[in-house]
Amino acid sequence: MSARTTTTGAPLEAAAPRSQTRTMMAVVKTAPGPGAQVREVPVPACGPGELLLRVLRAGVCGTDLHIFEWDRWSQGRLKPPVTLGHEFVGEIVECGAGVTNFQPGERVSCESHVICNTCLACRTGQGHLCENTRILGVDLNGGFAQFVAVPAVNAWRAPANITLEAAAVMEPLGNAVHTAFSGPLSACTIAVSGCGPIGLFGIAVARAAGAARVFASDVSPYRLELARRMEADAVIDAARENVPERIRQLTGGAGLDGVLEMSGSPQAMRDGLAALRNGGRLSLLGLPKEPFELDWNRLVIFKGITLHGIIGRRMFETWYQMDNLLASGRLDVRPAITHVMPMEQFDQAIALLRSGTAGKVVLVPWGVDTARA
Amino acid sequence: MSARTTTTGAPLEAAAPRSQTRTMMAVVKTAPGPGAQVREVPVPACGPGELLLRVLRAGVCGTDLHIFEWDRWSQGRLKPPVTLGHEFVGEIVECGAGVTNFQPGERVSCESHVICNTCLACRTGQGHLCENTRILGVDLNGGFAQFVAVPAVNAWRAPANITLEAAAVMEPLGNAVHTAFSGPLSACTIAVSGCGPIGLFGIAVARAAGAARVFASDVSPYRLELARRMEADAVIDAARENVPERIRQLTGGAGLDGVLEMSGSPQAMRDGLAALRNGGRLSLLGLPKEPFELDWNRLVIFKGITLHGIIGRRMFETWYQMDNLLASGRLDVRPAITHVMPMEQFDQAIALLRSGTAGKVVLVPWGVDTARA
Amino acid sequence: MSARTTTTGAPLEAAAPRSQTRTMMAVVKTAPGPGAQVREVPVPACGPGELLLRVLRAGVCGTDLHIFEWDRWSQGRLKPPVTLGHEFVGEIVECGAGVTNFQPGERVSCESHVICNTCLACRTGQGHLCENTRILGVDLNGGFAQFVAVPAVNAWRAPANITLEAAAVMEPLGNAVHTAFSGPLSACTIAVSGCGPIGLFGIAVARAAGAARVFASDVSPYRLELARRMEADAVIDAARENVPERIRQLTGGAGLDGVLEMSGSPQAMRDGLAALRNGGRLSLLGLPKEPFELDWNRLVIFKGITLHGIIGRRMFETWYQMDNLLASGRLDVRPAITHVMPMEQFDQAIALLRSGTAGKVVLVPWGVDTARA
Amino acid sequence: MSARTTTTGAPLEAAAPRSQTRTMMAVVKTAPGPGAQVREVPVPACGPGELLLRVLRAGVCGTDLHIFEWDRWSQGRLKPPVTLGHEFVGEIVECGAGVTNFQPGERVSCESHVICNTCLACRTGQGHLCENTRILGVDLNGGFAQFVAVPAVNAWRAPANITLEAAAVMEPLGNAVHTAFSGPLSACTIAVSGCGPIGLFGIAVARAAGAARVFASDVSPYRLELARRMEADAVIDAARENVPERIRQLTGGAGLDGVLEMSGSPQAMRDGLAALRNGGRLSLLGLPKEPFELDWNRLVIFKGITLHGIIGRRMFETWYQMDNLLASGRLDVRPAITHVMPMEQFDQAIALLRSGTAGKVVLVPWGVDTARA
Repeated sequence: MSARTTTTGAPLEAAAPRSQTRTMMAVVKTAPGPGAQVREVPVPACGPGELLLRVLRAGVCGTDLHIFEWDRWSQGRLKPPVTLGHEFVGEIVECGAGVTNFQPGERVSCESHVICNTCLACRTGQGHLCENTRILGVDLNGGFAQFVAVPAVNAWRAPANITLEAAAVMEPLGNAVHTAFSGPLSACTIAVSGCGPIGLFGIAVARAAGAARVFASDVSPYRLELARRMEADAVIDAARENVPERIRQLTGGAGLDGVLEMSGSPQAMRDGLAALRNGGRLSLLGLPKEPFELDWNRLVIFKGITLHGIIGRRMFETWYQMDNLLASGRLDVRPAITHVMPMEQFDQAIALLRSGTAGKVVLVPWGVDTARA
Repeated sequence: MSARTTTTGAPLEAAAPRSQTRTMMAVVKTAPGPGAQVREVPVPACGPGELLLRVLRAGVCGTDLHIFEWDRWSQGRLKPPVTLGHEFVGEIVECGAGVTNFQPGERVSCESHVICNTCLACRTGQGHLCENTRILGVDLNGGFAQFVAVPAVNAWRAPANITLEAAAVMEPLGNAVHTAFSGPLSACTIAVSGCGPIGLFGIAVARAAGAARVFASDVSPYRLELARRMEADAVIDAARENVPERIRQLTGGAGLDGVLEMSGSPQAMRDGLAALRNGGRLSLLGLPKEPFELDWNRLVIFKGITLHGIIGRRMFETWYQMDNLLASGRLDVRPAITHVMPMEQFDQAIALLRSGTAGKVVLVPWGVDTARA
Repeated sequence: MSARTTTTGAPLEAAAPRSQTRTMMAVVKTAPGPGAQVREVPVPACGPGELLLRVLRAGVCGTDLHIFEWDRWSQGRLKPPVTLGHEFVGEIVECGAGVTNFQPGERVSCESHVICNTCLACRTGQGHLCENTRILGVDLNGGFAQFVAVPAVNAWRAPANITLEAAAVMEPLGNAVHTAFSGPLSACTIAVSGCGPIGLFGIAVARAAGAARVFASDVSPYRLELARRMEADAVIDAARENVPERIRQLTGGAGLDGVLEMSGSPQAMRDGLAALRNGGRLSLLGLPKEPFELDWNRLVIFKGITLHGIIGRRMFETWYQMDNLLASGRLDVRPAITHVMPMEQFDQAIALLRSGTAGKVVLVPWGVDTARA
Repeated sequence: MSARTTTTGAPLEAAAPRSQTRTMMAVVKTAPGPGAQVREVPVPACGPGELLLRVLRAGVCGTDLHIFEWDRWSQGRLKPPVTLGHEFVGEIVECGAGVTNFQPGERVSCESHVICNTCLACRTGQGHLCENTRILGVDLNGGFAQFVAVPAVNAWRAPANITLEAAAVMEPLGNAVHTAFSGPLSACTIAVSGCGPIGLFGIAVARAAGAARVFASDVSPYRLELARRMEADAVIDAARENVPERIRQLTGGAGLDGVLEMSGSPQAMRDGLAALRNGGRLSLLGLPKEPFELDWNRLVIFKGITLHGIIGRRMFETWYQMDNLLASGRLDVRPAITHVMPMEQFDQAIALLRSGTAGKVVLVPWGVDTARA
């Protein structure tokens, strides 16, 4: 991503978005290969059942880094050109045909998974496991842009009491809620392994949802410091400490009721399993880079462990749960949002993620007045 | 209860409890009929598998009031003479034969249900539903005394960070935990109907366990004030307000996810059902005075409601959950404990309960130094 | 229902249904008040997202009897004129705009609840509890007709191995599946109270779903004989026998794991609760005629019972479960279908239901060749 | 195992077992190293709370083979000398002190896990996950002998309608019940991978418990033939067929609801995960020989799979469930029992297991009249 193709998006803001010839600024994967480009592209049409949003804030995700770097998964999945960005909040500027339960001017966050509604998963309350899922910013044009069109069924009115930055990251926050809520939480002793943004959210979610104690582990002192800011009851430096041993001490030998695995690290998973009490659960959201082995007998079978593979957000239980926690003030994710920067600086945001010295990074599109939130 | 039969229990405290001829002071239902008597009775023997406790504090329960008043249930159940009191904390002064996991000097609270361990319920993790339950202070001599003998399996080391008064009421607190935990809590909107001691505990438990919002209703301004002190998000005066209507307003029309019914009032139950969203749950701990009718179609079937009958405490999930919440500091029941008084004044304690101007009343046995806690 | 307004529907069958002026025969509640009329009415239009079905068989339900009799519920709910009938199977003759996953010529059964897809229940996998449900044959024109238009999302391809009569009654069969599956079944001892059609289905469902033993009770010798044909392990004549006592004998004193309450009878519910073991569940589908009282303490709270209010069918878990059981041949509902008769004889069908000498009655619309199934 | 040390155990049978100097025949691991010895050893004492059983039949388990071969697990666990055998049925010949709910003459099968009743798992209804489990025939003297002493709480009255051979194998049958019942069964499509004895039992259990269809896979034509005898709806030769592809065909593309993994084979586990529908469950009982790797992203996380590690039997839910299924006649395990032979021929039994040409092998102790069952 290098050559700016326009100098400002400002005039777009005042203009009506309806015209087919209107353009906007966006971060686009224009062709297969590493990188991403800031481009002037047409404002998306607002089809039947869709909403056109003026994007106010957008979160950068580890997946965006993978797409930027054009890893193997990206190569197999993306069909450029595609506008990136699957975490965002926007203001409705247009309601497509047939949309009756939204109005222009409303502020909405957005579920990024666009599902088929016809497969078994969709028809049995498990839309997050839809076999035909398309993802905004991956398979469909996303929210790193001045405007984005989304299915109205995917829009979620953000609670009025939260900041625009918090509203922008409800999608990854929902991953944390889904992971946490996939097993018992109330009165439980929970550990979160991996303190990237979703892990940090997981700490706050587990606390808000009634866990008795929440521990956090990571190998990065920077991220452990963020975990402390999220009020983890204890943080464990997995680079220096024996995690299961430390947890044994912290729990008087009892072990954990649950682990929220957010790192994708084989060692973190093994440590988490070892630190669980018999009958505990480990919920797996972190994606390992490659297959890895496990001592199934010792870590899973003899202990009677339950493992949950977690993807997406339950549609829409997770959103109701998240909304309740945010609206009540019990859940506050702001300490995990470490950087807010212009969307135009997408390259710098990616560099920041790579450096490991950022929590959640939120982008502000061209022409959006940051004073107004 | 009138004639004092001894003037002080103090000498007992220093004495060894083992002697068969030792006596102690106790509150005893000496014969069928209303009332209870303070009597000098033998210190209980400590049988195999039992612990002998020096009682440090004991809670007074609504059931004690029923026993005092000798209601129909009491008439059918109690076989006087019996020492009353099923909520208490004590210090172990003797361990019976075969007891290996407790030591004299430890401070323990106590599960009051003594179960058979042989029926289907007992053998499938549902000991609270044992068909042959005997209850301390009801079927067996209880804790309104200087000493009480309890099965070691019923003893629970009270968390070190809580007061003796709080440790004394873990049994009824466990009722609240059991009721609350019988359905979803995390991120839920919960109402507690009935703000007697267990209802007050229920407010604190639901909050500690991660409910997003907790409402409380009662007909007594005194108890509603206590509910406010337990930090209910809203209190509803059922004598003056339309409860379902008020909840509709508080929830933006959504209704409740769950009701913890602690009053035994038919109207409270109907209001709770009416205030639930479709698919919600109502957990019934409060005992109605007599059978009452319900519009099953409108309140239960058409709404897809789940009703849970709740009794006792899950043995011992409930105790682990309660312990975790207390030990972590998330759960604090002290505001619900409004009176601490000498056990000798049991009659006054009963009068206080009858008056409706008390939360939980805790008694201090003869010879116990209240300064030491 | 008396005056025939046409003599035959036959010509309609050959005709294309698309013409707006085409008519068909139907059973219609033409105006408030008792009865129903056979009328010539327009063939329904097939709107966007809808299917137009030529009805092949339709089941008569107790609700149709209530509508015929114009009971209080009907008076409050129906807005005549409306074509009755909410249980049916048909052949697709037309697919509305936007329907891509069905083809003309397919044989489909139909979920009768048309839901909003926007309320909390709909968006959390509980569409059967939608707050805005409209029911075919009650709120919308139904299937007691030569043609019916239904939302394509409500259509279900009936398994190829079942008869048209069985396919016609998948809707009420789904009620039985939903009720049975609302608690544990495998290896359980289950009783079904009430042996009308849904109760009879419930016997077969519980057996197919792996209950160890299934008992059935009713007050009608005719229905008990049908229960025997459904292979109940024991039938209990509630008019002559003490149901809880008989179940105690049948279970060696253990009691039931679950009751499927299909009768709406207060006594059946009390008997069912009394016959449950501690910790059992009672699932309530039968609609009582009016509010009734319960000894909550003895029958629900002290026993730790769970009560489930059941309505409709889980959309669409219930349909998948039912389909699996039917397609595998484990579930056979044919013995419960006692009468197949021309739809024109709707009055006689109603009389049959009233007489109590019928299981499920299935109607054959005008012009349908019964030889072809 | 070679040198017979006595020629007959017959006289023992008539004798009273109480005498401390009485001896019996038994299969004993006398010292570390491969093999097992038939030895004359003292009849075990019947301690307080114990039952002394005259063994009538005993099953040989794959674990016995591992112990015979003295694999790494055995080396770390067993402390010879120990009498082997953890699956058996016997007749009570003596009740220890304090045993009130059994009588001499009763026929009992036996749970092999002797648990501590004091750890968290034991006290929360998860005794199968006790941290201090000792196993009969592994840590304590077992049932490959004329007599065995067992805790009375571990004894289970075998249903009267089953054969002694079936009663002898309730312990491994319970493994299959536990595995099957760890997720949904009713109306589900289930596959069992691995058709050794527990896999064969699993087929029968899943069918009896209401699965709509049950598939079985293995690499051995002999075991697949046994799977057919257990009435698997389809058998898959994993040595020749692509298992996920075959299951896709069998399910019309839908995939499985659940897999019961009984083989311990890494390929079977990968195939099972691949064959599951999104949101399915895999329950792991088979013990892999060593750690192995998995493509977590593709097989677990993206599919939202739940994995259950399974050990032992739920104490005692599993036994109630198993008893209900056996007593009702729905579950019949006899086709899986391929060999009944004298216990004296333990070496041959082991050879048979090694050869892969046996289902379950049942042993008859010295002096037991096989005609009497």
